[in-house]
Amino acid sequence: MLREAIYHRIDLDYCYALSKNKFLVKLRTKQDDVEKVNLIYMDKYKFNEVKKRYYKPMKKIARDGMFDYYETIIDVEMLSFFYLFELIDNDEKTYYSNYKFFNEKPDGDNSTFVKPAKAEKDIFIVPEWARKAIVYQIFPERFNNGDKSNDPRNIQDWYSKVDRESMLGGDLEGIINKLDYLQELGINTIYLTPIFQAGSNHKYNTFDYFKVDPQFGTIETLKKLVSKAHEKGIRIILDAVFNHCGVEFYAFKDILKNGERSQYKDWFDIKRFPVEVREDPDYATFGYVGVMPKLMTKNPKVKDYLISIATYWIKEADIDGWRLDVADEIDHSFWREFRNAVKAVKKDALIIGEIWYDSSSWLQGDQFDSVMNYELQKAVSDFIIEDKFSPKEFEYSMGFLRVLYKLPAYNVLWNLIDSHDTPRFINKAKGDKSKFKLAVFMQFTLPGAPMIYYGDEVGMTGGQDPDCRRGMIWDEEKQDNELLQYYKKLIKIRKDNLSLTLGEFYTIYTNENIYGFRRAYEEEILDIYINKGNRAETLSLNVEGEGVLDILSGDKYETVDGKINLIISEKSGIILKNM
Amino acid sequence: MLREAIYHRIDLDYCYALSKNKFLVKLRTKQDDVEKVNLIYMDKYKFNEVKKRYYKPMKKIARDGMFDYYETIIDVEMLSFFYLFELIDNDEKTYYSNYKFFNEKPDGDNSTFVKPAKAEKDIFIVPEWARKAIVYQIFPERFNNGDKSNDPRNIQDWYSKVDRESMLGGDLEGIINKLDYLQELGINTIYLTPIFQAGSNHKYNTFDYFKVDPQFGTIETLKKLVSKAHEKGIRIILDAVFNHCGVEFYAFKDILKNGERSQYKDWFDIKRFPVEVREDPDYATFGYVGVMPKLMTKNPKVKDYLISIATYWIKEADIDGWRLDVADEIDHSFWREFRNAVKAVKKDALIIGEIWYDSSSWLQGDQFDSVMNYELQKAVSDFIIEDKFSPKEFEYSMGFLRVLYKLPAYNVLWNLIDSHDTPRFINKAKGDKSKFKLAVFMQFTLPGAPMIYYGDEVGMTGGQDPDCRRGMIWDEEKQDNELLQYYKKLIKIRKDNLSLTLGEFYTIYTNENIYGFRRAYEEEILDIYINKGNRAETLSLNVEGEGVLDILSGDKYETVDGKINLIISEKSGIILKNM
Repeated sequence: MLREAIYHRIDLDYCYALSKNKFLVKLRTKQDDVEKVNLIYMDKYKFNEVKKRYYKPMKKIARDGMFDYYETIIDVEMLSFFYLFELIDNDEKTYYSNYKFFNEKPDGDNSTFVKPAKAEKDIFIVPEWARKAIVYQIFPERFNNGDKSNDPRNIQDWYSKVDRESMLGGDLEGIINKLDYLQELGINTIYLTPIFQAGSNHKYNTFDYFKVDPQFGTIETLKKLVSKAHEKGIRIILDAVFNHCGVEFYAFKDILKNGERSQYKDWFDIKRFPVEVREDPDYATFGYVGVMPKLMTKNPKVKDYLISIATYWIKEADIDGWRLDVADEIDHSFWREFRNAVKAVKKDALIIGEIWYDSSSWLQGDQFDSVMNYELQKAVSDFIIEDKFSPKEFEYSMGFLRVLYKLPAYNVLWNLIDSHDTPRFINKAKGDKSKFKLAVFMQFTLPGAPMIYYGDEVGMTGGQDPDCRRGMIWDEEKQDNELLQYYKKLIKIRKDNLSLTLGEFYTIYTNENIYGFRRAYEEEILDIYINKGNRAETLSLNVEGEGVLDILSGDKYETVDGKINLIISEKSGIILKNM
Repeated sequence: MLREAIYHRIDLDYCYALSKNKFLVKLRTKQDDVEKVNLIYMDKYKFNEVKKRYYKPMKKIARDGMFDYYETIIDVEMLSFFYLFELIDNDEKTYYSNYKFFNEKPDGDNSTFVKPAKAEKDIFIVPEWARKAIVYQIFPERFNNGDKSNDPRNIQDWYSKVDRESMLGGDLEGIINKLDYLQELGINTIYLTPIFQAGSNHKYNTFDYFKVDPQFGTIETLKKLVSKAHEKGIRIILDAVFNHCGVEFYAFKDILKNGERSQYKDWFDIKRFPVEVREDPDYATFGYVGVMPKLMTKNPKVKDYLISIATYWIKEADIDGWRLDVADEIDHSFWREFRNAVKAVKKDALIIGEIWYDSSSWLQGDQFDSVMNYELQKAVSDFIIEDKFSPKEFEYSMGFLRVLYKLPAYNVLWNLIDSHDTPRFINKAKGDKSKFKLAVFMQFTLPGAPMIYYGDEVGMTGGQDPDCRRGMIWDEEKQDNELLQYYKKLIKIRKDNLSLTLGEFYTIYTNENIYGFRRAYEEEILDIYINKGNRAETLSLNVEGEGVLDILSGDKYETVDGKINLIISEKSGIILKNM
């Protein structure tokens, strides 16, 4: 048993409350190194009786190529509990307790891990609805022009090539006009990139956080959008750009005008006055971009101001949550207060951070509900397009992700393959539609909430931004209808099968080209296989019962001698359900 | 190179800001497995130029028997930085980056760790004075009776044996009367166990948080104590018992009277009404003790009420901080708000948690400044009394502690050998005074702030509580004056040598009985050796310069041929400084 590989830590994502008396406990070992792991736990405070030891076998739930991960969920009605791990291999027992190893079960109380079990405010509560969310990301300037009267000057032809400065005229009324389309597609959550008054087509350089950009409409248009969306069971998430503002934001403008005498000088991190807007200027920015001065959230006035924006739009327009731009560059402390404030005005508001890497520091339950899952985007691309991963290596990357975050956050990750910040998948795949469809298939079957970037469903293309931000294809002649039907089918399957939204996930099969995993919820079991190879493959499976149905194609396979043999086409997936 | 042993994680205690542009980065490897580790880092945002890679060698700062720990502190003026580790062994280079291993330096940005460098509010700031604190813990009922008029009925003779119910009559006036004694001893911080109105001699079952217990005095006596202490340069820390209250606390009394109709019913976690006070009652408690109902801090009213107590006593009586009772059983969320509120009313107030085990979850910078160091108490006892640890094993336990917490918390740990909750060390050591003195020596020379439990300095004895809570010995005939002088000398040495309070710490020597470590601050270097054995030992050291002075004994040792030979007596320590 490789002791150096064994890992657990008190609290955080290795031992935490899922609900009032339910605790998840995790342990890491070297891969394929240990036969069996038991959690042993006991009440910390039953001083006057012999402590009862509870044993709970732990389940191997993931592996990542180097490590196995064991997990169990226990029910404890205690004030606090002591716990340790019993590791069994080759009939030998080793105990891991309070960061030490023992050959005999340790006795004293000081030698165990400890978990207080009544710190209820720390329970990580994520909105129920987020597990069933199917998100549709809209870049408003490019989705639909519903109101010509608010068009910017010099708008380009809708379908023309776009550059950094292009304006096409999309607006909120345009989105309202397409709610039927979105409802028919089947999505139930819209995420809008920024809509407040700003100085660009993407609106990430905010001038006025309390005003809808006149090019997009007014507060009334937003209210109408939210209310009509709600009628259709669609929630609206806005983009909170709190890391930085635009240069015409009133506080920054005041500094440009009044220099060191400005009452807002501590709202920014300014090295010297007077302040001049240029590349790599004398004030902190986003990415050294002069027109995006960084807001100093450590200043309580800035913090309170920004949080008041978050609650204002919930209270005023009844929006359903926030996606947080450049979330990692703002202090944790800010996001904790932000969460408290947002959840206080709307209990089931959703908070999704934009972080492109390990976000576990932000997903302990006190900050975001979850994040945009760029890690998945990368893994799927490495697997399907780049051919960097074998099915087993893809399993490892999914295994790593399975244990990286606390379950409540993991279950609602926004699984994207495209966004306004990355080239469209279809472009990265050099137009290979079957690869694209396979990636979409994975988006809809792996754990987490799929996020569709506008237009992906009708075959839109585009390279690195701004090219990935073209005008949405509304001309039905130009839409890929087969693709659209494919999306609709996957969305329907996801809604009809709770295991895809609420079910467990684990890998069941890998070979050279095929990756198989199971989603299981209560009695419902879906066995999903992906063939990433360039040729069809035969798969022979042991099946109890009459046979299985591929709920994607409708194909049925009958059991013969306890087996079925089926063929998976190249670059495609199947979703098998017992008949 | 054992890859499974290598550990780093984004953020938390493995990569964090020490000040505006200073970041500490840590890496764990298998012990004695790697020759050299370099940190490589680069600016995340210099898009338009070839990224400059900065190399910084990392220093091996501790080992714990299984792992080595490498650390470095870097200065970065960037918005955010990418980083990875270069591990060198046998001329082979391996790169550890974003949780993966590479044989070649990885290129793409997505393959590195990331650290945002401008989230300034998250910088862990601990009061400067805490590093130089020498703490004296007083159990007020037992320290000194300065006002007979507030004595409880039926007080016992001051020096008689105490039981759970004993009352001796100690009070705040008694402490005021002894401030000269404490000043002469040399301490600069007093920690008082609870002083608010309660129903016991220890006052841990609070009845009224806004009232000094009449047996101890009034708010005026407290103000006088604080103000007189401040005049002498002594700070006062009070005990915040917020996990639970006593049964006569107004909110709980209301429940006893009005049952389910009480407006305070959500202040506690009550299973059924009517409520009856008994062992293991139908409401959550501390340790299933009926007279200590647990307060539900998840209720915002309870939270606000308790936090208002914390700020009230700072504002009213100018106290200097809080020691937090049963701190682990209250939610993190509560402590975060508590910290914000306390630091807002007194910027350099100190917050020390009572947690007996790995407290890293509470010491990330957002909750406590540090904790009572029960881990050290155990290690010293295992080393000196139980003989469980060899010097090398003691080194390992100190190494583990060195890397367990962020440096700001580590540097101000309250190093105790005794407290009101444990038998006095001298009793555990079966009266062996030399062992006791050696433990005190370690308290004053290892990193962290020593905490003296009242009476230890004059040779008080006592077993498990209540026995460790006897009346303080004031009769000079009964005091151990030799011991008192020893304490005074150690305190003076600590004050005269900044390396003991501000210096680095690392192990320099171990053999069968001797443990040697260095404390170093700027030019000042102290080499400290402890002989835990039962016989004197000769130590031969290479010394540059004329020789060394043992600043504890005053003995001088002259260099002969670049060496000194000295004898360390059994169970004692020396503090060597270059002459």
